[in-house]
Amino acid sequence: MTNVFVIGLGLIGGSFALDIREACEEVQVYGLDNNEDHIRQALELGLIHRKATADDLEKADIVIVAVPVNASLGLLPEVLDRVPDDAVVCDAGSTKLQVCEALASHPKRRNFLAAHPIAGTEFSGPSAALKGLYRDKVNIICEVEKTAFKLQEKALRLFSGIGMRIRYMDPAAHDRHIAYVSHLSHVSSFMLGKTVIEKEKNERDIFDMAGSGFESTVRLAKSSPAMWAPIFEQNKANVMETLDEYIANLQHFRALMEQGDFEGIYEEMENTNRIKEILKGISVPAPRRDA
Amino acid sequence: MTNVFVIGLGLIGGSFALDIREACEEVQVYGLDNNEDHIRQALELGLIHRKATADDLEKADIVIVAVPVNASLGLLPEVLDRVPDDAVVCDAGSTKLQVCEALASHPKRRNFLAAHPIAGTEFSGPSAALKGLYRDKVNIICEVEKTAFKLQEKALRLFSGIGMRIRYMDPAAHDRHIAYVSHLSHVSSFMLGKTVIEKEKNERDIFDMAGSGFESTVRLAKSSPAMWAPIFEQNKANVMETLDEYIANLQHFRALMEQGDFEGIYEEMENTNRIKEILKGISVPAPRRDA
Repeated sequence: MTNVFVIGLGLIGGSFALDIREACEEVQVYGLDNNEDHIRQALELGLIHRKATADDLEKADIVIVAVPVNASLGLLPEVLDRVPDDAVVCDAGSTKLQVCEALASHPKRRNFLAAHPIAGTEFSGPSAALKGLYRDKVNIICEVEKTAFKLQEKALRLFSGIGMRIRYMDPAAHDRHIAYVSHLSHVSSFMLGKTVIEKEKNERDIFDMAGSGFESTVRLAKSSPAMWAPIFEQNKANVMETLDEYIANLQHFRALMEQGDFEGIYEEMENTNRIKEILKGISVPAPRRDA
Repeated sequence: MTNVFVIGLGLIGGSFALDIREACEEVQVYGLDNNEDHIRQALELGLIHRKATADDLEKADIVIVAVPVNASLGLLPEVLDRVPDDAVVCDAGSTKLQVCEALASHPKRRNFLAAHPIAGTEFSGPSAALKGLYRDKVNIICEVEKTAFKLQEKALRLFSGIGMRIRYMDPAAHDRHIAYVSHLSHVSSFMLGKTVIEKEKNERDIFDMAGSGFESTVRLAKSSPAMWAPIFEQNKANVMETLDEYIANLQHFRALMEQGDFEGIYEEMENTNRIKEILKGISVPAPRRDA
């Protein structure tokens, strides 16, 4: 019997629990969460087999820590202290440099695998967990050489078992790239939502005039502040750099408009249209709870 | 037999043609397009019954003009000149003030209905036409009082026949609101795409690290420059105003980050989360070609 512990039973942790229960034979999935209501929901929704306490970690084979990135900095060393020598502890945070630095000299560093599953939705909590969320998604592993080889294997078997592809990257490069393809999107979406809400006090007008395009660009503004404020804090320098470039591009677009240079505007858009080709590789069918 | 003419057989015109063929009895749908290849495709895809020429407009009952908003300024007066007195000519443009002004003193102003169907996707051309695109969507009608009452009725019967809801608005208010809930989303998405493409020359990295969140915020950057450059030109003042507010909000967010005020960042996001409630009303199932 493999004992998998999931700490943090939100969208990310809950979806891991659900798929691991399904995909693995002879597995017991234990859940821990500071929020008792989340544990109750996770049991009701069938995400986990049973509730656990920190003391139970001594029988863990695999632990997945899926809490906000500020909380995981304090939690991961404690978890590592408690697990047996042949257990692997994975995180799932959207920033990788700080967590790798924080654990660099931990006596059980070789039991830790720094991971970032590129998957999620704008929703949160156990009820947001989705079956198949990780199928065909990438899990980015950082500093793989610092994890004991047998424990790498153990974790990767689990991730492939639920359909994930693996990529390796160093933590600084991860944080720099992810600022562009994820964190900046969240800032742009939140500020777009803010701009429209501020202006359109009469929500009825937004409701009737907004189409699927607005919905798409503003979707991430539904995301959890408790998850995202710590991400922005940990990836401050990179996110500020992406923001500077984004703001400069918006100002350039505005300047072209002001000058009446709509051929320039046309070219800006045409050059950016090649995002089509790039996105072709990303698009996968949306996961469904009942899939 | 009702003769419906669709001028411009792209996503918008083609989808109108498709639904009108389906929903209306005793209807002939004629298609016109400057691009001969679009006409060929529209016939092959079954969007229209037959190809027409400008001379055929003398037998029109209803004309839908779905061309870029700069082209429609020149085209609509010519179409109005050619149609019989009991025909109604509707446009479908995303800007309404300039077209209403351009036609204000046309001798057949009472044959024109200024309309903006809030529907679409980021794709274009006849092959982008979707069955059911307009079901449950809003069609915004401007200056309805300037259209002959019987012709209003004729057009609205058609629009309700394909499942649309109608809202009335004056053209200046339309252009001001739509800048916030549609045009700004397109600028933000195009500039987001540009920022990421510029930085990530190695497309493989974007491909692997970008998730559905990025895809969602950048989706509109696939949109047609030929459609959008004229929209930005016609709605220049309003779009620049929204851009100024958006840039100011991004700069404020950046300032909070620089000051390390992540409680402030948290609050910004929490306040914007109420976009959830607003979006609840917008979300409708995506239309499918084979629906």
